[in-house]
This record gives sequence, C-alpha cells and structure tokens, in this order.
Amino acid sequence: MRKIMLYVNDVPRTLVVDPAANLMDVLRRQLLLTGTKDGCEDGHCGACAVLVDGKYTLACVTKMSKIPDGAHVLTVEGIGTPDKLHPIQKAFILHGAAQCGFCSPGFVVSAKALLDANPAPTRAEVRDWFQKRHNVCRCNGYKPYVDAVMDAARVLRGEMPETALEYKPENGRVWGTNHPRPTAVAKVTGTLDYGSDLGLKMPPDTLRLALVQAKVSHANILSIDTSEAETMPGVHAVLTHKDVKGKNRITGLITFPTNKGDGWDRPILCDEKVFQYGDAIAIVCADTEDHARAAAEKVVVELEELPAYMSAPAAMAEDAIEIHPGTPNVYYEQRIAKGEETGPLMESAGYVVEDEFYLQRQPHLTVEPDVGLAYYDEEGRLTIHSKSIGLYLHHAMIAPGLGIEPEKLRLVQNPAGATFGYKFSPTMEALLGVAAMATGRSVFLRYNYQQHMTYTGKRSPFFVKMKFGADKDGKLIAMESDWSVDHGPYSEFGDLLTLRGAQFMGAGYDIPNIRGLGRTVATNHVWGSAFRAYGSPQAFLASESLMDELAEKMGVDPFELRYKNIYRPGATTPTGQAPEVYSFEEMFDLLRPKYQAALQRAEENSTDAHKKGVGISLGIYGCGLDGPDGAEAWAELTEAGVTIYNSWQDHGQGADMGTLGTAHEALLPLEIGPEQIKLVMNDTARVPNSGPSGGSRSQVMTGNAIRVACENLMEGMCKPDGSFRTYQEMVAEGLPLRYVGKWTASMASNCDENAQGAPFAIYMYGVFMAEVDVEVKTGKTTVDKFTIVADVGKINNKLVVDGQIYGGIAQGIGLALSEDFEDIKKHSTMLGAGVPFARDIPDDIEILYVETPRQNGPFGAAGVGELPLTSPHVAIVNAIKNATGVRITHLPARPEKVLAGLNNGSH
Amino acid sequence: MRKIMLYVNDVPRTLVVDPAANLMDVLRRQLLLTGTKDGCEDGHCGACAVLVDGKYTLACVTKMSKIPDGAHVLTVEGIGTPDKLHPIQKAFILHGAAQCGFCSPGFVVSAKALLDANPAPTRAEVRDWFQKRHNVCRCNGYKPYVDAVMDAARVLRGEMPETALEYKPENGRVWGTNHPRPTAVAKVTGTLDYGSDLGLKMPPDTLRLALVQAKVSHANILSIDTSEAETMPGVHAVLTHKDVKGKNRITGLITFPTNKGDGWDRPILCDEKVFQYGDAIAIVCADTEDHARAAAEKVVVELEELPAYMSAPAAMAEDAIEIHPGTPNVYYEQRIAKGEETGPLMESAGYVVEDEFYLQRQPHLTVEPDVGLAYYDEEGRLTIHSKSIGLYLHHAMIAPGLGIEPEKLRLVQNPAGATFGYKFSPTMEALLGVAAMATGRSVFLRYNYQQHMTYTGKRSPFFVKMKFGADKDGKLIAMESDWSVDHGPYSEFGDLLTLRGAQFMGAGYDIPNIRGLGRTVATNHVWGSAFRAYGSPQAFLASESLMDELAEKMGVDPFELRYKNIYRPGATTPTGQAPEVYSFEEMFDLLRPKYQAALQRAEENSTDAHKKGVGISLGIYGCGLDGPDGAEAWAELTEAGVTIYNSWQDHGQGADMGTLGTAHEALLPLEIGPEQIKLVMNDTARVPNSGPSGGSRSQVMTGNAIRVACENLMEGMCKPDGSFRTYQEMVAEGLPLRYVGKWTASMASNCDENAQGAPFAIYMYGVFMAEVDVEVKTGKTTVDKFTIVADVGKINNKLVVDGQIYGGIAQGIGLALSEDFEDIKKHSTMLGAGVPFARDIPDDIEILYVETPRQNGPFGAAGVGELPLTSPHVAIVNAIKNATGVRITHLPARPEKVLAGLNNGSH
Repeated sequence: MRKIMLYVNDVPRTLVVDPAANLMDVLRRQLLLTGTKDGCEDGHCGACAVLVDGKYTLACVTKMSKIPDGAHVLTVEGIGTPDKLHPIQKAFILHGAAQCGFCSPGFVVSAKALLDANPAPTRAEVRDWFQKRHNVCRCNGYKPYVDAVMDAARVLRGEMPETALEYKPENGRVWGTNHPRPTAVAKVTGTLDYGSDLGLKMPPDTLRLALVQAKVSHANILSIDTSEAETMPGVHAVLTHKDVKGKNRITGLITFPTNKGDGWDRPILCDEKVFQYGDAIAIVCADTEDHARAAAEKVVVELEELPAYMSAPAAMAEDAIEIHPGTPNVYYEQRIAKGEETGPLMESAGYVVEDEFYLQRQPHLTVEPDVGLAYYDEEGRLTIHSKSIGLYLHHAMIAPGLGIEPEKLRLVQNPAGATFGYKFSPTMEALLGVAAMATGRSVFLRYNYQQHMTYTGKRSPFFVKMKFGADKDGKLIAMESDWSVDHGPYSEFGDLLTLRGAQFMGAGYDIPNIRGLGRTVATNHVWGSAFRAYGSPQAFLASESLMDELAEKMGVDPFELRYKNIYRPGATTPTGQAPEVYSFEEMFDLLRPKYQAALQRAEENSTDAHKKGVGISLGIYGCGLDGPDGAEAWAELTEAGVTIYNSWQDHGQGADMGTLGTAHEALLPLEIGPEQIKLVMNDTARVPNSGPSGGSRSQVMTGNAIRVACENLMEGMCKPDGSFRTYQEMVAEGLPLRYVGKWTASMASNCDENAQGAPFAIYMYGVFMAEVDVEVKTGKTTVDKFTIVADVGKINNKLVVDGQIYGGIAQGIGLALSEDFEDIKKHSTMLGAGVPFARDIPDDIEILYVETPRQNGPFGAAGVGELPLTSPHVAIVNAIKNATGVRITHLPARPEKVLAGLNNGSH
Repeated sequence: MRKIMLYVNDVPRTLVVDPAANLMDVLRRQLLLTGTKDGCEDGHCGACAVLVDGKYTLACVTKMSKIPDGAHVLTVEGIGTPDKLHPIQKAFILHGAAQCGFCSPGFVVSAKALLDANPAPTRAEVRDWFQKRHNVCRCNGYKPYVDAVMDAARVLRGEMPETALEYKPENGRVWGTNHPRPTAVAKVTGTLDYGSDLGLKMPPDTLRLALVQAKVSHANILSIDTSEAETMPGVHAVLTHKDVKGKNRITGLITFPTNKGDGWDRPILCDEKVFQYGDAIAIVCADTEDHARAAAEKVVVELEELPAYMSAPAAMAEDAIEIHPGTPNVYYEQRIAKGEETGPLMESAGYVVEDEFYLQRQPHLTVEPDVGLAYYDEEGRLTIHSKSIGLYLHHAMIAPGLGIEPEKLRLVQNPAGATFGYKFSPTMEALLGVAAMATGRSVFLRYNYQQHMTYTGKRSPFFVKMKFGADKDGKLIAMESDWSVDHGPYSEFGDLLTLRGAQFMGAGYDIPNIRGLGRTVATNHVWGSAFRAYGSPQAFLASESLMDELAEKMGVDPFELRYKNIYRPGATTPTGQAPEVYSFEEMFDLLRPKYQAALQRAEENSTDAHKKGVGISLGIYGCGLDGPDGAEAWAELTEAGVTIYNSWQDHGQGADMGTLGTAHEALLPLEIGPEQIKLVMNDTARVPNSGPSGGSRSQVMTGNAIRVACENLMEGMCKPDGSFRTYQEMVAEGLPLRYVGKWTASMASNCDENAQGAPFAIYMYGVFMAEVDVEVKTGKTTVDKFTIVADVGKINNKLVVDGQIYGGIAQGIGLALSEDFEDIKKHSTMLGAGVPFARDIPDDIEILYVETPRQNGPFGAAGVGELPLTSPHVAIVNAIKNATGVRITHLPARPEKVLAGLNNGSH
C-alpha cells in the first residue's frame, strides 16, 4: 500500500492505495467519485478521463504508483455541480449531447482540458482532440459534442453570454421543442448512478460476484470442482447449476408454433453442455470483486470439447451434430409469398439482377459494460436491477428458470449506459437471481469489457441471396430471396428476427410478387439479440445494394430508379400491407437537388489518390412488436402536480423526455409546468407493463398509453362546468387520483405463414445519402458527409430525435466500414471490434425532416430509434461502388477488402 | 433491503438500503458523505446532524425505514464547499470555532437549521438551540460557535457584508494574529478525513476488525474458543495472543528505577489474565464491521473471575492479591522533601488547616471514538495510522510487543477528533499491528463509543491528604501531603504522574518547607492515561481548596491570602526551582477589581432560591517533559517556498497553525507568504522526532526546533552580501536544501528522589475566577461567568490560544460539576459521563492575557493547552463554598452532593 496525499478536486485528501491499483478504481471505489465512469477499462473509451496536474489522463490505465504525491486530480465532480454547472456542461445540455450520458463526464473532462489548452479551437481541432484522447460516444455521433464545445468556448472567451447556454422554454409547451431531458444535468455532472455506481453504493455486506465461464464454444461438461475456490480469501460461496432452484433455463418465449425448438435452450448456469464461449458455469460470491475473480480462476471445469459451428453454413452442414440434442440446428423457417409465383416472372423480366450478401455480427459497443445487482426487498421480493429494456418480458423469461413465484420477483432498470437493443435479452438477471436466492444476501455483478463483448448478444449475421426482376422501364415486378440467420445457440426471438427479413427485404418499393425463404440457424457463436433496426440492416443490405446493381445494369440513375418504385398510393409492403402514409415521393423530391449537387462535388473532388462517390439507400422500420401491440401507463394527481407511471425503459434514448413531452402535451388543458410532472419509471413493483423498449414502439405504444391515462385523469378531474377539480377537491370528494391508460394497436395484425399481414400500425421512413472518400492507396473509406431525409411523424423532442438520428447514422458507418464480432479474441475490445472514433463520423450530417402526422401516433408521432440504422450502411457501400466501382457485398468494408477490390480490378 | 430515492444535497439518488440501517451509516458507508461524522452513535453528540426535508435530524438514530421516499437530505457537503463556503462556514473559520473540527459539520448543519427557522436569534437562543439539538463541542466551550452564528446571521440578514467574515491578513505577519488554521476550511466543510472516514476510503479488500473484550474487570483466562466465530459470514481470521509474533506486551517505558514494576504489564491480547473491563482477548478480521462484530460475539472465553479492585484504597488493602503477580499493587512511591522537616513547623504554626480530597476519573469525552488502520506500505513497512499524539513514543512502546524490527514499523497520525491527552497512550495501535501482521492485509478498527469509554485511558483519580501551616500573617511556612494515585492496571507513565503531584501540590506559592509522599497504585479500573494538565487538577484541588480553607480559618479574603503567598523574586517552586518569570503579582492586580465587582454582584443577586458565589484559584503547569526535553524539525527549500517537517501531533489544538505561525515568523527575512509554507507532519517515515504532543511542550520544544531549522536554512541560503539565494541558485550551486533544526531545554533538570529539581524550562501561569449560581432546591450549580488571567508568554495564534482556554475551562466546569467515569455501565456514554452541553458552559468567559515573553520560548512563547485545566474546577468549588457554605472535596460536585451539603447544614 502507498500513503498518498492528493488534491482531489482541490480538496486535500490523504489516502492509502495499492500502488498497482489504477486511478479509476481508487477514485471510484475508495472515494466514490463515480462521475469517473468505468467503461472499457482498457484506455479505449475515455469514460474515465480525469486531469492529473492539468494533464488529460485515462484513469483506468494509470497506476497509482505513477501519480506523484501532492498531485492535483480533477474529476467531473470538480468541474461543475448540478447547482453550479460549468459552461461546458450547460452547452452539453443545450445541445442534447448527453444521451445515455455514460460517456458525458469523460467528454466534459476532455473538453475542459482542450479549452484550457486551446481556448479557440476550430471544429476540426475539437474532433481531432476527441479522436486523440480516445473519447468514444456511441449514442450521438459526436456532432452534438462538437457543437457544444464550440458554444462553450465562445462563452468562456466572453464572446457569448453564459445565459445563451441555458434552455429557454418555448411558448409554454414541451412537445416539439428542444427541452433538455430531465436526466441531462445528472448526466453531465456525473451524478447519475449507473449500475456499477449503484453497486459501489450498496450496503457494505453486499456480495460481489464473478463468473466462471467457458473458454471454448461447444463442449460437454464432465465435472465442476469448486473446492479450491471455496477456500480462497473472501469467498462466501461458489454456486453451480445445482444451486439453481428452478428449471435453470431462460425461456426464449417461442413466438411461432412452427418453431422446432421449445425455447428452453438457454441455461442459467451450464449443466450438461457449453453452447458458446463465455457461457456461465459457476458464480463465485465474495466480499470484493477482486477476490471473487481470483477465486473464479480456481474453479476446475472438466470438459469434452465438441466441434464448434461458428457460422450458419457450418451449423447447416450435413455432418453437423445438433447443438441442442433433439432440435435441428435449422429450427425455424419463414416463407414469404406475395402475389404470383416469381419463377415465370423472372424468366420474362426485362432486367434481372441477383447477388449474395453477408451482414456481419455487429457488436452493440455500449460504453458501459453489462452490470446488475439483486437483493430481497422489504416485502421479501427478489429484486433484480439490471439494464433490462424489457422488465416485464424478462420477468416472464427468467422466473421459471429461477424457480420463483412471479409475484415474488421484481425487476428494476438502472440508468443504462446505452443498450441499443442488446438488453432486449436477459443477460445477467438470472445469474444475479440465483446468487441472491442461494445466499440470501445482496449481490452485485459487473462484466469487464471482454465479458461484455463475449457474453451478451450481438446482431445476428444474415447470409442473403436475392434476385430482382424488373420490366424494361425499371419497374420491379418480382423479388426472390433466401436468407440464413446465424442466431447463435439461444433461440430467443430468433424466429421473429427471421420474419423481419421477410418484412423488410425489398421494403420501400411496390413489389407485387415475392417468393422467399428464410431460416433460423443455431450456431456456437454468440447468441443473437436485438439491435437497433433489428433485422432490417441485413434485409436492406441485400435489397438496397441490389437496387443499385439493377440501376447499373439498366444504365439509369439509382436515385431515379428508386423514385420510380417507391410506395405510392396503391402500393403494398412486402407483407401486403398498405403503408399508413406515403412520404417517399416528398422525401425523394427534397433530396434530389442535394443528390445532384453531391454527385457534382464528387466528380469535381475526385483525384487519382482519393476517389469520391455518392450512394443512396432507403430504409423503413415498423413501430412496435408484430400485430396488435399495446401498453399501459398511469397518471396520478398529486398535491404537487401529476405523476406518470410507466415502464418506458431507457436505452439512453430519452425515455424520461419521451414521457415528459408526451404527458405535458396531453395535460396541456391543466396548464401545469413540466417541473410539476413527476416520473416514476421502470420498476415492476411500482409501474404497469408498458412492454419492452424495442422496435421504436415506446413513443407510439407507451406514448398513447400516457396520453390515454392523462385524458382519463382529466376526465376524472372535470367538473360539470368544464373546469378542473384541484387535488384538494378530488380528495375531498373521495374521487380516485390514479388513472390507468391502456392503448392497443388494434389496427395491426400478425403475419401469416406466408409473411402476409399488417404487422405494424405505423412505420418510419428514411432516405440516406452518403458521400464518401476512398483512399486508393489503402482502400480506406471515409464518409465526408451524410444526409438523411426522415419521416418519423410529428416530433416530440427535437434534441432526442436529432440525437437518435446522429447516433444511428454513426452506428451505420461503423456497420459499413469497421465493426464486427467474429474473432472472439481480437474483436472483444472496443478498438478491436472497430468502434468509430470522432474522426470516423463526419461533422457534416444533415437531417431533413418530413413530419407527416400519424393518425395512430400520439399527437401524430411515430417512433425514431430504429430508422437511422435501417440502411445507412447501404448508402455507404453504394457510394464506395460509385466512387471506385468496387461493390462490397460482405460487410464490413474494411480497407483491405476495398483495396482488394481495387486491385482485382473488379471495377 | 429497501429501494429508495432521495434528494441528497439536491441531487437525486436511487439507493438500496437496509430499512434497519441508520441514515448516518447509509450516508457514510454507502455514499461516502463522510462530512456527517460518526461520534457517539447514540444521539448525544450531534456530529451526525443532517436536515431531512429541512428538519434537524440526528442521522445516527434515524432508521432508513422512517425516511420517506423522495425525501431531501441535506448534509454539510450540501451547505457549502471549500470553493464556495456558506457564510456560516466562513464565520466558523473566522471565529476559530473549528478546533479538532470533528463536531464542526454537525454545528454547521445545526446552525443552518437554526437560521432557517430564526434568522435573528439572540445569543441565548443560539445556546438554547445547540443545547436542545444535542450539539456537543468538547474543544471550544461553545462560545466561538455562538459568536460565529451571530455573525453569520448578520450577514445572512444583509446587515453585514459577507467579506466581513473573511480573514484579512495583518501587517504581513502570521505570528500573533488571528490567522485561521490551515485545516479550518476542510473542517467546516466536512472534507477532512478523520480515521473513520479514511477507513471507509481504504482499498476494498481491507479487513474490518472487531474485538472480543473482557466483560469483567479481573480474571484468569482458562480458555479461548474461536471455532464458531471462524465459520461466521465474512470472517477471514480470528486472532488471539497466539498470533502475536512478539512479546505481546506494550511497554510502559518505566521512567524511574525505583518503580517496582518492569513496565511490561499491558498485554496486547490477553493471554493469562484479564486486568480490566474491556481488555482485548481476540480480534475478528472480516469483510465488514458488522460481520466482524457478529463473529466476535461467538468467541467463547472461559474465565475464572478474581476480586476486582476498583479504587486505590481497595487495591491497597491488606488482603488484596497482586493484580500483576510478582509486582505489588503499590508499585511506585514518590517522596517530596523541600526545606526543613515540617512536623515541628506545623506544631508552631499560627494557623494549620488540613483536609482530604478526591478528584475523580475524568473521561476525555472526545466526540470521535478511537480509531485506526494498518497496512504494509510500498517499502514493506508495517504502517499504523491512529490518533497517536506520540508517534515515536508509541513506536518504541509497541515494537517489541509486536515483534517487529523498529525500521519496519511506521506510525502515522490521522486527523484526530480530539484526544485531550488520552492518545498519549497507545490504544489500538498494537492491535492493528497484530492483525495486519497475522493476515498480511490492510486492516481497520473503530471503537464504538462504549468501547471508546471503557478501553481507553482516563484521568487517574487522586486520593489526597494535605496540611498547610501558616504564620500569623498567613504566610505559608509548611506543607504536608499524601496522595494515592489510582492508575488502573497498566503502569505507563504512572510513576511520572505521581511525581506531578509532588510538582504541583502547593505550586504558585512560596512554600519553603514541604514533606509528602505519593504512591502509584495498580487497580482494576480503567488504566490511567494522560489528560490535559496531567496530575495538576488533582494537585490543585487539594492545595487551592486548602488555601480557601486557610483563608476562612484566618477570616481573610482568599484572594488576598493568595496574593500574599504567590511567587515573587526569591520564591521557589515545590521542586525548589526559581520560576523563569514572576507574573502572578501583575495577574492578581489585573484581576482584583474584577474580583471585587464579582463579589458585589454575587451579594446583590443572591436570593433564597439561588445562592451566588465567587471563587478563586491559581494554576501552573510546566511546558515539556521532565528535564532536558527537546525536539527536532526540518526546513526544506522548494521551488514553491519552504516545507516544514515535524511530528507536532495534533489533538485538535492546532499543530498545523502552531507550525505555520512559528515557521512564518522564523522565515520573515525571506518575505514569503504563509501559502508558500508547506507542512509535512506526523508520519515517522517522513518527519523527524519532535517528541510527543503533551505537557504543552510542542510550541516550546517543536517551535524552537522549527525556528532553528528555519534559521539554519536561511544561513544556508545567505549570500556573502546578506541577500538570499533562490531555490534555483541553491540547486545550481549544489547546496543542500533541507536543514535540520534541533533544540534541547538544557536549562532544565530532572527531579531527584526528593522531587527537587528544575523539571521545566518554562511554565504557564493562570488565575481563575468562577461566579456560580447554586439552586438551593436542587443543589444544581451553574457557572454564570468565568474569568481567567493567563500568562502563556507571547501568543503565536490568538484564535488557537483563545480556543485552548475556552476549551480547558469548559472541561474544568465538567470536572467540577458533572464528569466521571466510575460506573462502567452508567458512565460509558457521553450523556452518562456528564459531558457539558452548551448551556452548561457560560457564554460569559473573559480572558485576560499577560504576555510575559519567555526567554527560552520561540519568539517569547510558552505553551498553553494544559493551563486552563489546571485548576478552574477549584475556583468553582471555592465559589460553591462562597455561595452556600458547602465545601465539596470529592468531585464532581453533582447537585445531589451539594444538596446533601445544604441539607446537612454543614455550611
């Protein structure tokens, strides 16, 4: 140990530290300065940034032995506090730069260091600074941070009043404004407690957990020996499948009866087999995380290794054994059949194009790793806090496996350092439950980043073959498709994902005749979970690439070919549904001049060394779960105003703002301010089931439920003369204060066995345009500018919606160019997995909104989150083709792949 | 567990808490808001005060189950921060209200609540508020807090500018000013980490200790069974005497060869015997304090109980067995013989008076209980942090018992929530060392208040018989004395304490002939340790009471009788030493008109129901350890200024300010500001041995060492032309930067076997005047006003010296009227032990300084800390006698005792 005196945020502190400990752990664990966030712990993400003697320092990779005695350490808590925000923090709030907020403290610190060193940076210098300091934001595509820093700099230079950084309410409304999200202040000041922070703030006798995990991808378990681990320092218990009270399975809640599996395929703790790398075999419960991890190393697991099928084709091979004995590896097939048989139509078509595509196993790359905790609450309920974005869903998925009465299980969402969908799957919830049930103690578990990468779900790769037939004018007449979904070993939602292929391949165009077949394949790679735009990036990679191929074959402009085929009145979706609005024509018309200008820019700026190109794609996604989805919310009159109760779970997208904006708009007749609306959210013991937060359903489903609850409340308050009773009057009259709001999308219907139906009441529409630069020497693609035309209906909150779109596009760029999770070792860090840094995302992102009101959306709104990641990547690969003649059909389009194309002269 | 959302200092925090936990533990352990201090944990001291929804709340006795969800909790951290002090905090600093600072956050919170409720309180209302809110300050006698609150209120009401609360430097000097102590800001903001706070900020794998302690006072140990405890949750190890590597004894460092003990009488962990209640028998090392305490309950100790000797007379009885077999219970005798044999003189004296006195086992009643931690440092040294005020002394006392090479042992002082001398003894240091050595881990131990009361040393009771002989004019000619010191079972400094009796009985008067005998007696009550004014309150109770008895017998004014006998040139002390200054005449002359006015007030205001009276006493104490005491300090030139290294340990008195003031004065020629002087203190690995902080020696010994070090530094810096080299020049010339300063009181000499010698180079002198009110119905005494004339030489820092005097008088009032530690059960809480609350200490305390420069003091200074507690209690008992005719000779003068005197008609 080392005794050290540090000025921590200018306060002298004598501390005793392990010289080998890192500064981040000392700040977090020993000083509870949890504004310094624990992200990658590997110097890749910048969430732990602090200043040491004024110097930008990544605390996670800075050993205490390197910190001089008497050093000044500045953390986000020392830069500004909620009651005394620094201009940088104010600017972050004003520009909506804090979404999930997990990276925000690191950005605040980084921006402080930048402006201390360079009070008048250019935008390029700001981006360069963030790039070199490894500040990763996965939510907002960096642009809002750059906007904010530029404004903060102006204020700090005295060129702009500080008040200009403070949000001014607009016309008494919250809906449709730039109102900052309620959690923004906490996020930029580092005072919001995420799971890991809350873990540090648990009662002292909380057990810290560590997992014993499989280091192979497929094996039979012969024995598990915990004896040595049990004697390790600080160990309270070592738990295996024998300690699980229930069925020890997480149920996949099979959606379709034709699924050949039963959904009970995912063990909580492996008993007979290991199905994938990272599978949990045992849980060590100890007094400290380090002790738990050290003891976990001492558990001896004897395995008989089996062949590992690391892709759909491998698992589909003739000689492949069944991963889940008794269930074929191809356990679900989804047909699509619309209109006439396509075979004869293809024969007679004016133009036919076909190709094969592969979209990779995209990692979510949240900055916060998975984390959770569990305890028995004061009513004896097993209470599990996690990043779950489907509290009631997960409740149903894990209760039987744990062996607990449903009413004795309570799920709570912690503030999440983003999920982007991976938390549509249960991750550690059941493991936490097992540990709390077996020990009767409070327990806490945090994955390190490698565990987070290897043992949480990923976007499932699709292998797609597709064929278009068009008439001589380029009007599509038929589509054929075949797709295999590598869903990893666990079935949850795998059938639904395969259906998504049918729903979105060719979407956007009026294709009267379709035949296709998709299949869900069990493999031994990491399990497939939800990811923003679930299934559609795979679908659009095929159909939006193929549209360009068709245009090329026809020698027509791909923009105009699309324009010819887009949904217009009379058209139907691939599932045979009439779109609820027809926005594409207006959207394309809006984009056309920009497209033409972009083409001209590309031509003018292309050189032998740098080829420029422009690519277009369209994207669509439905808002909701298939069929008549719905939600429940409550509104309660209180002395102080109105309290809204719901389970609008927050990925980081802004569920708080979504709820507040919707409720305030619904309650306009009451003339109350937003500060009078209190939110109680995301705790199954306190709020109703609003359904999971996925598929951009929340603004529509939960939003409508909030609206209905507020309307019911106001009806309850309404006097005969039309005025409203006060709280006191309601109480005096003995009237109920709490009102239920339920809403169901009864206008939607599930798809049939031919994938025909009206699965979504509301869709979101987008057109994407990428302008790229390809360095000929290296094959490296850079997106110079990105333009999107979006119709997400009426906009609840502009900051939130902008932020969603920036972030989705950024993830699309990563999907197109760098991200993958294929090589378990190489790709299990942020850097290795190809996370985009500041300079990888263009500063020039242009968003054009076409706000077509949705009849069934609350106040005309649709959703937004999925849209920007439906097909931005395809605009980029189309742009690469436009620039270089090289068509990338297997993502990501890493430089070596593009270079190989250039060298092959395939262009 | 309960999930709860709290606004903690206005920041929303979701927490998981045990509903049975108290708010203090949740704030401290789960949120590390360690500004909320853990004092008595029983609702008596107010150190844990917070506001819950604006309401003053003692967090230690408030269960989390009682806190409403959504409550606002305001702690000191939310009131003001070091960079944004609240006016209350500024006022506390300005008025020197924060001494040890442990109670300060509670007072800040309490004052905030008061001024929120009553913006314009009177002084009486402030005192009343603190009284009713149970805000205990043991350092400053409340007056500075009241002064500060009145000023803060003026500022908050807008009647005074806030800048008036900020200290303005005076004439470029620090010495002799009201410069606030360097730690003041940290103390009033709750950011200073005391031992318990640092314990919470230790690395996560730190073991938490709990003791298995004796619940009887004297016994043989038959067996110790730790087997069940070892299986308790979270337990890492249970240690007994068998785990101690060394001699398992703390050595008392016997001062005198005539001591019949060998000083090796105090076990670290009891092996064969239990010597007192609370003796440590085993140490449980566990992951949490609660687990350690729970397991400690499961250790089974089989005892053979022995007769417990709970007072000196009991242990001196003929049939008493030896507490330490082989050593008589009366293990040391101290004779005093000055001048002629007194027997014949008494025969012929004009007046003879004699009486018997008992001064009780005064508890120190620090608000902070004892606490410490240990670990191996980066150089493999066993490092022990504690409240030690004698780091090098304790190093020598515990190393052999632990069995560690001295160079492998490092002691560090944590900021101490006061000691008042109890930490002149090692307390838990060796226990911490045993645990760290046996486990190899970092360890932390905190006593609860009951443990703190029962298992730390107390002021040793004296049983004194005394006789004065005076001539017809009242000139003292002879004194005879006999005193028995109940020192508890452990010998440390017991011989020295007995010598103190010889040195201070009758001190202040020129008594030419003295004979007496004192003895140190081992008992089974709690061991005797140092306490402010060590030995002298016992001595003066006898001689200063007896002076009044003599005056009464003679029918003269006790003030004038004293005046006749005080030291004047030619006089010698009881040890035969010529005082270094003769201040008493000036001091008495200064007090005389105030005394006469007081007498008149008493007469005018006395009623049948309330008797008023005035009492006088004088007090003296030496600065230093007996004989040629000395110290070492270093001064080092740095780029930023000068760094001072010393071990001026801090009880709370202001070692930081003492060092800064002395160093700045010494360095005046360099013309540097106080902010350029850095202090490195109280760590045996980093600073030299300045000796223990006791006996008011530090300002003299360490102060001189600092002065010499600074002089040596300046000599090293001095160029031939008389100007000073800069740091850069020194480095360039290769000159040494660090200079040693050593100083020894070579003018002093140890006392001989007749207690004759010149033990102290410098003394402090005081005259005390108490004005009391005795309620006839109840016997309750209240001190209406207290006046002191003090000569402590030239004053280094006025705030510090005032504070010492206020605090000493307050403790003297407690000693006179309420404090005791006799009944182990009843007296082991703050309330039970009689701690004075705000209304028990008069608001009217008047200090008159006579600043006689001391030739051997640095810049003329003496010490101060002991002086105000030498004999204020005797002024009070003399005043009670003056008011009622009742003489209390056995303290404390609790109401029932005075009432009994009143009823006995002994007046």
